Amino acid sequence: MLYGYHQIETPAMENLSTLMGKYGDEGDQLIFKILNSGDYLSKTTADDREQGAQHLMPKISEKGLRYDLTVPFARHVAMNKHELTFPFKRYQIQPVWRADRPQKGRYREFYQCDADVVGTDSLLCEAEFLSLIHAVLDELGITEFEVLLNSRKILTGLSELLGAPDKMGDLAVALDKWDKIGSEKVMEELKEKGFKQEGIQQLDNLLGAEANPFSLEYKLPESGLKGLHELKEIISKAEKIHGTELNIKPDARLARGLNYYTGAIIELKVNNVKIGSIGGGGRYDDLTGIFGLSGLSGVGFSFGIDRIYDVLEELNVFDDKGLKSTDVLIANFGEEAEEISLDLLAKIRKSSFSAELYPDHVRMKKQFSYADKKNIPWVIIPGPEELADKQVTLKNMQSGEQNTIVIDNIIDYLIKSIR
Amino acid sequence: MLYGYHQIETPAMENLSTLMGKYGDEGDQLIFKILNSGDYLSKTTADDREQGAQHLMPKISEKGLRYDLTVPFARHVAMNKHELTFPFKRYQIQPVWRADRPQKGRYREFYQCDADVVGTDSLLCEAEFLSLIHAVLDELGITEFEVLLNSRKILTGLSELLGAPDKMGDLAVALDKWDKIGSEKVMEELKEKGFKQEGIQQLDNLLGAEANPFSLEYKLPESGLKGLHELKEIISKAEKIHGTELNIKPDARLARGLNYYTGAIIELKVNNVKIGSIGGGGRYDDLTGIFGLSGLSGVGFSFGIDRIYDVLEELNVFDDKGLKSTDVLIANFGEEAEEISLDLLAKIRKSSFSAELYPDHVRMKKQFSYADKKNIPWVIIPGPEELADKQVTLKNMQSGEQNTIVIDNIIDYLIKSIR
Repeated sequence: MLYGYHQIETPAMENLSTLMGKYGDEGDQLIFKILNSGDYLSKTTADDREQGAQHLMPKISEKGLRYDLTVPFARHVAMNKHELTFPFKRYQIQPVWRADRPQKGRYREFYQCDADVVGTDSLLCEAEFLSLIHAVLDELGITEFEVLLNSRKILTGLSELLGAPDKMGDLAVALDKWDKIGSEKVMEELKEKGFKQEGIQQLDNLLGAEANPFSLEYKLPESGLKGLHELKEIISKAEKIHGTELNIKPDARLARGLNYYTGAIIELKVNNVKIGSIGGGGRYDDLTGIFGLSGLSGVGFSFGIDRIYDVLEELNVFDDKGLKSTDVLIANFGEEAEEISLDLLAKIRKSSFSAELYPDHVRMKKQFSYADKKNIPWVIIPGPEELADKQVTLKNMQSGEQNTIVIDNIIDYLIKSIR
Repeated sequence: MLYGYHQIETPAMENLSTLMGKYGDEGDQLIFKILNSGDYLSKTTADDREQGAQHLMPKISEKGLRYDLTVPFARHVAMNKHELTFPFKRYQIQPVWRADRPQKGRYREFYQCDADVVGTDSLLCEAEFLSLIHAVLDELGITEFEVLLNSRKILTGLSELLGAPDKMGDLAVALDKWDKIGSEKVMEELKEKGFKQEGIQQLDNLLGAEANPFSLEYKLPESGLKGLHELKEIISKAEKIHGTELNIKPDARLARGLNYYTGAIIELKVNNVKIGSIGGGGRYDDLTGIFGLSGLSGVGFSFGIDRIYDVLEELNVFDDKGLKSTDVLIANFGEEAEEISLDLLAKIRKSSFSAELYPDHVRMKKQFSYADKKNIPWVIIPGPEELADKQVTLKNMQSGEQNTIVIDNIIDYLIKSIR
């Protein structure tokens, strides 16, 4: 990969002790648990079996399907710390599973693509991710998007400003819902969490209209200012790395639900589509601490592949090219044509075109319909009369045009027509 | 894909009703079962919970992880019969899971790569697979291998010859172990299964020395001869499709354990390595019948990706190139060098070389060691003296050679040196 990341894969199954307690109570519920193999009840007592599902579960299930790629990555880094080269840059494209009710944009099995760097607190990492996100979107042909950027440190500053310096977590959880439930309900939630009325009022003034964190510059306490200066530096470095200006939108309301973020946080939104958010990430200072390897700072970003697919579909970015599976179909004209058909098949494939010989000697109509449904653009028809003259007919399925071509010239003809 | 196959993916989880009963009793045991979500005990009675693991299982688990790619493929074809274009050619590369005790060559999670054609009984399909197998091995750089070929019809003929025409299945299961347990134990097993002594003796004469099915030509009954003629035709077509002679070894002892094969059977073995068999397949006449779509003949072949990996490792076929992740590391010389370093980073990546800037300003020794461990061949050193002359030092990590190069010429230099 252009950015120097190394691909890893981890097993689909992790120990439940690795997974549980990392995603909140709701997350624990959504982890698919795997029944121990063999006589899974052998270690349970009659009493265990009568105390309900919750109690019995840890006694009959030790493994679960991974819920995201971050926790398995942290486990992997902690387990292999002596073999890895730090700073360790990896990417990982694998499915994750959640026992959720399936709906559009929310799947039981979906692919994530994560990239992380751990073992450095250099802001160059955050900057590089901003460049990488733009490169990926460019590659995908998505032009209308926003890269939202904020810092957990700014949120810490805000909660200090609101007179509740220890409640950054609650603030983040509430802010995260601003777009979904509106400012009033966010304020209600903050009130419930014990924020004082005057603080809450202040928040609405600060973030209600334009939520650019840079407009908070003269209001934030020292803790928040540090985050603000980091964002400035990150954006400046990112544009240098990318070589162009970038489409970054600083947003003081961006919170990212997950608890482990400690610095910059990033979210990627595509405009004018139903499922907006297709990726997110940020700086964490102690992701691997829970697995016994502390003090390892890093930055990660995760793309939701299936959501990206949905977005591309909604935007109609897919072209027909991607769906074409075969360049040339050789029609089956039975035994007499087989010798020459197989010979052509070998030669066409040798020229790196994909080719098929229709396997059965059936009506041409059926064979053409097969080519049509599979989007195969060219069909070679080795009819007996043409073969007698060492020729075949080549049909262009798009225009319907047919040409008779000397067999020895067919490869040259295809090269001219397809490439 | 060159051969006109279309990629599909299926979910990791299938209904247990789809999976169970397809792989024999042992197979059923080896399927990973997933605990129903939520209160999985809600549909069980106290009585259920006391009748043992076997009884309770179907009441608390409805889904399992796929055991192979064949059954999910058959389910997919039957479910989507109205949308698919037949003959349907697909390939699929995904992990499968087995609750086995892990050991070398046997994993709990491993990748399979399957290709199948269904909806035609043309022998061109078998022939094409033989060509495809050779193409794959060629691509992998594996030259010492055997493609074993036999037909279930020959085994039917053999069991008829042994006076037990209805016992082809038992014969196949026993023959399958010939290489592992030796001929004597195979004979013992056949005796236990009810084959008569004289038949068994005959088998040893027929297959003991050279097990070429073509040497059986004058001994086999009609049913077996049909298989033999098909093999002849398949080999002849395969060599035409491939355009060269192929390395195929007809072997009358080849049986392939799985029950659904009805025609040609194929196994791929690599010579001179511990884990020999890296793939297998064959013709089946009614794979989708169990899912309500009968009369659909097809041929499939499955490569064991992790075993292939092990084989390549054992054969030392991997070269260093595959492991190199980054072309160029730019050493970090701190803030003064950052402007030019980021600029170089953007330019190098724009020329499609992968490049990294070391994220922290630390000792050069540490940065060189990072390049070394990651197998990065070139390091750019933007030292202050060189920068003053608009130059940088470029170090070749393999030879240790260092050159001072004008910054504007660095891309040209890399193009000459790397490409």
